[in-house]
Amino acid sequence: MSAAAERVVARCRELALISDVPGETTRTFLSPAMHAANDLVAKWMREAGLAVSMDAVGNLRGVMGSGPRVVMASHLDTVVNAGAFDGPLGVMVAVAAVEELRAVALSFAVEVIAFSEEEGVRFSTPFLGSRAVVETLDEAALGLTDAGGVSVAQAIRGYGLEVERLSEARLAKEAFAYFEVHIEQGPVLEAEGRAVAAVTAIAGQTRLRVRFEGQANHAGTTPMRLRKDALATAAEWIGLVEAEGLKVEGLVATVGAIIAEPGLGNVVPGVVTASLDVRHAVDSVRVTAVAQLLGAADDVAARRGVAMSQVLLLDQAAVGMDTRLTGLVRDAAEACGYGGGALVSGAGHDAMIVAPHVPATMLFVRTPGGVSHHPSESVSVEDVDAALKTTVEFLRRLKPETIERNNA
Amino acid sequence: MSAAAERVVARCRELALISDVPGETTRTFLSPAMHAANDLVAKWMREAGLAVSMDAVGNLRGVMGSGPRVVMASHLDTVVNAGAFDGPLGVMVAVAAVEELRAVALSFAVEVIAFSEEEGVRFSTPFLGSRAVVETLDEAALGLTDAGGVSVAQAIRGYGLEVERLSEARLAKEAFAYFEVHIEQGPVLEAEGRAVAAVTAIAGQTRLRVRFEGQANHAGTTPMRLRKDALATAAEWIGLVEAEGLKVEGLVATVGAIIAEPGLGNVVPGVVTASLDVRHAVDSVRVTAVAQLLGAADDVAARRGVAMSQVLLLDQAAVGMDTRLTGLVRDAAEACGYGGGALVSGAGHDAMIVAPHVPATMLFVRTPGGVSHHPSESVSVEDVDAALKTTVEFLRRLKPETIERNNA
Repeated sequence: MSAAAERVVARCRELALISDVPGETTRTFLSPAMHAANDLVAKWMREAGLAVSMDAVGNLRGVMGSGPRVVMASHLDTVVNAGAFDGPLGVMVAVAAVEELRAVALSFAVEVIAFSEEEGVRFSTPFLGSRAVVETLDEAALGLTDAGGVSVAQAIRGYGLEVERLSEARLAKEAFAYFEVHIEQGPVLEAEGRAVAAVTAIAGQTRLRVRFEGQANHAGTTPMRLRKDALATAAEWIGLVEAEGLKVEGLVATVGAIIAEPGLGNVVPGVVTASLDVRHAVDSVRVTAVAQLLGAADDVAARRGVAMSQVLLLDQAAVGMDTRLTGLVRDAAEACGYGGGALVSGAGHDAMIVAPHVPATMLFVRTPGGVSHHPSESVSVEDVDAALKTTVEFLRRLKPETIERNNA
Repeated sequence: MSAAAERVVARCRELALISDVPGETTRTFLSPAMHAANDLVAKWMREAGLAVSMDAVGNLRGVMGSGPRVVMASHLDTVVNAGAFDGPLGVMVAVAAVEELRAVALSFAVEVIAFSEEEGVRFSTPFLGSRAVVETLDEAALGLTDAGGVSVAQAIRGYGLEVERLSEARLAKEAFAYFEVHIEQGPVLEAEGRAVAAVTAIAGQTRLRVRFEGQANHAGTTPMRLRKDALATAAEWIGLVEAEGLKVEGLVATVGAIIAEPGLGNVVPGVVTASLDVRHAVDSVRVTAVAQLLGAADDVAARRGVAMSQVLLLDQAAVGMDTRLTGLVRDAAEACGYGGGALVSGAGHDAMIVAPHVPATMLFVRTPGGVSHHPSESVSVEDVDAALKTTVEFLRRLKPETIERNNA
């Protein structure tokens, strides 16, 4: 099956040459380059035996068989100056799995979806493709405009699609399972020496902006004890953020952005604004950590005579993957000789959008160096082979009647 | 004498209305507004009985008497959007002291100099006025250009002065003492409840740029233990910088500027660049502290697998004020009922430029809130009265024969 894995990697690389920006890989929602990318992927889908169509949001969809349906999906759009695998790998593995299983009599139909949008680049809002198939792409989303003033609805029409037929994009009633292969985009599998892992949940996340307001003063004439240094305050707090992340299992807590004002070497900083990003698979753990860190910020600031305030930017609950499906993926990986562990995803994925509607799970593939969203993003053929074998084994073991349908 | 102090404050306020930028106080080296400012100050100098001239760098100079000469000086230029007292106060107190002492038979001549430049705004280089009087305003300095491409030499000619006569700006051979009144620009006198204080030294300072290079990573997918977070590294170090400043008497150590890259809330910072500003009256203490803090940066970075490097931007030795003159100022302040303490100046002043050439000292005036370089900068009439009384008493006690001339 290694030849199949090699072809998956080669197809991802070929697709990466199709770009809106020559010399790099950049494909945004329904951009000019997406025509050629969709044409190429549609050809590969047809060669695998799938009946291909495109829905009104530009998702490319290939179906084989009838009856209860497994949906395997990922996205074809990219970030700006992207790598070749974030998104396309999941589509190519799905197509390759269909090819592998053509001769096998599965007890269900298979649909491969190549979502038109996941990264949120063009409209600063992600998941346009998957939101359409679960019918949450509402009027507000259709009215969003890009940097050129073009709305989502206009972009759809401009691509030659009919926005009025958007409701037809919804997942088939027969869909009983959703499966997404994706690069991990993190260093855990590499650190643990594993090729692939099932995903148990997509972490919830809180994003805040924290502001410390002390007093700007002359760095030469203001003795240390008479200062209200907003940056020294922020620095003490950043240490506590890191310590909390290290202390609580599975928690990540990050200060990624910081701005000091006036930001001059010879002036004690008067105001510091910093970001806080906290994620965990268990919402209560995350909420407790955020409360703890905001309390710490308040304490540190108060002790120093500095004012602290915060603005909540995002509070997104964790999304659990379907337990039974995830168990099947773990079993399949283990049966293929790839260990049985599972990960929590710290990043959002289309599976997060679909999961409330259809039982869903994911398979992560080791990402060398944890590097993604960068041209040097890579995967090894061996790891893709592991993903493909696990996917095929998962599909072999899958029985529609054993998966409980969601209510939604 | 309170009426005299009120007049000093009123004159500073009147001068603050003369500006290159309407609605604020901004006067740079030989700018259009300096014509009117010099005319006004020249009038006040003449009214005090001083014979007024302007040297080739635009310093306004008023002399009374002959023989050994005391020079009292400060600057008339300002920072952008300045207050009314940083600079002009010293000139106005000097003129008022001359008025007070007109009837007294002093054993020496008095020269009041209103320096044309100290703040370094127009040519990004400070002390143009005082450097001219000690003959260190060299060809390189004259060739510096402002934002409009005008050189210092051209600015001098444009104002109607003769750059060829620059050497005539040097201090008279008879000058045996230099005295400068200036607002403290810091909070120490206010914290100690004192109106004025003699200055024993101008602190030396070291300025560096420190760079931490870790690894940028996805804030959601990179576990805490697999990070090389440049900002967490910098934050730990900033805490050590603050602790060192608090530990060492008289030391100030400041991180005023910080830039995190890529600087996004959802990305672990890969690179952080931060400033370090360290000042102390004793050079060996400062040098030891800098070495300690760079060593700490290296240690913190190395423990975290982060690279650390630094660039030295400034290494300026401390400048001691003349011991005998400073003692006289302390005695004068004490005799007038204003306590006998003394301060180290954390900021640079013209006295620092003059001190290697002529015995020099300074008197600081309490600065409410420590606020300067801001329109809200202020002084109280009572404190100006204290400064004026101390200045007059200092001049009464001063005997040329007791002051040892510098060799320079």
